[in-house]
Amino acid sequence: MKSLHRPDLYSWSTFNPARNIDFNGIAWVRSDGNILIDPVALSNHDWNHLQSLGGVVWIVLTNSDHIRATPEIANQTYAKIAGPAAEKDTFPIHCDRWLSDGEELAPGLKAIELQGSKTPGELAFLLEETTLITGDLVRAHKAGTLTILPDEKLQNRQAAVASVQRLAQLSQVETVLVGDGWSVFHDGRDRLKELVARL
Amino acid sequence: MKSLHRPDLYSWSTFNPARNIDFNGIAWVRSDGNILIDPVALSNHDWNHLQSLGGVVWIVLTNSDHIRATPEIANQTYAKIAGPAAEKDTFPIHCDRWLSDGEELAPGLKAIELQGSKTPGELAFLLEETTLITGDLVRAHKAGTLTILPDEKLQNRQAAVASVQRLAQLSQVETVLVGDGWSVFHDGRDRLKELVARL
Repeated sequence: MKSLHRPDLYSWSTFNPARNIDFNGIAWVRSDGNILIDPVALSNHDWNHLQSLGGVVWIVLTNSDHIRATPEIANQTYAKIAGPAAEKDTFPIHCDRWLSDGEELAPGLKAIELQGSKTPGELAFLLEETTLITGDLVRAHKAGTLTILPDEKLQNRQAAVASVQRLAQLSQVETVLVGDGWSVFHDGRDRLKELVARL
Repeated sequence: MKSLHRPDLYSWSTFNPARNIDFNGIAWVRSDGNILIDPVALSNHDWNHLQSLGGVVWIVLTNSDHIRATPEIANQTYAKIAGPAAEKDTFPIHCDRWLSDGEELAPGLKAIELQGSKTPGELAFLLEETTLITGDLVRAHKAGTLTILPDEKLQNRQAAVASVQRLAQLSQVETVLVGDGWSVFHDGRDRLKELVARL
């Protein structure tokens, strides 16, 4: 796994040829048990790396299209799974916990419910105020420039734009880790404001 | 290949498990023939993508440790190869052109010779003043933070630091594309200045 901007955060990626972007999984390493977010498949090397850092106790999913390698990882590790509360009735895999707006899976990792995206109540996560983690709605196909899902994928564009505006108002965001594409490691709030201005 | 910050720039990567970073190849797409820099191996998908963009006429290497997939790509495409002039006598593969400080392989792509790095006269490239492309000396193992090779890899630390200081004085650099690790897509000159301050 690759080191992110904090010593307790890692990511690993699989290249998606249909979109020519990387799909990214994130690992937050904590003394109370590591948390994976939207994990893509791990290579043997990354699997061993993760085990050396303490394995995994929770897998958090931003939406039902980002299940990725979760079933295989959960099967092998007995990790619990948390998903978006708004998808509770139709989520394709078993979840141990459902997260709504403002809930913290672990202290410092706060769920933000987005509206109007591809799936109901897609989650983003704010980690200790400065790192925003997004699933599908906010993404980056071009390095250095955040974008959102194309209109035809959105359930409600107006609601989706309002949700992105809400993210852009998070005043301390320095880093934006995207599930799909190029993450941003400095001045994330400025990149989010630029995104809002283009919507 | 993944879209970089300009529509004529792409990159593709292979993960290096020994260092837990990506090794990156870069493609500059031009009407006068595309140029690859330090190309890692291309997947079939990326190979087709490159061909659809016009193939390749030149491969430019920053140093003899970054030859990577150059022989295979050159064999299949008849691309010419350019390397660092200071390694001319010992370079492990045939080069069609040797680049010294200030030379342009193509208009807008200027070679910068670095001193004291792992190999003599390692090249960096300044693309149209705003994009700096580095090979080995300047790199990023932690996202968002540029670093240099460890002291034990440097031939002359003082000379290497002076070369990095010279890069940090390039006033228009917005993007720093690194051969090894995490590239920077905004405020590259600030990241370079922060690097110099830490050396």
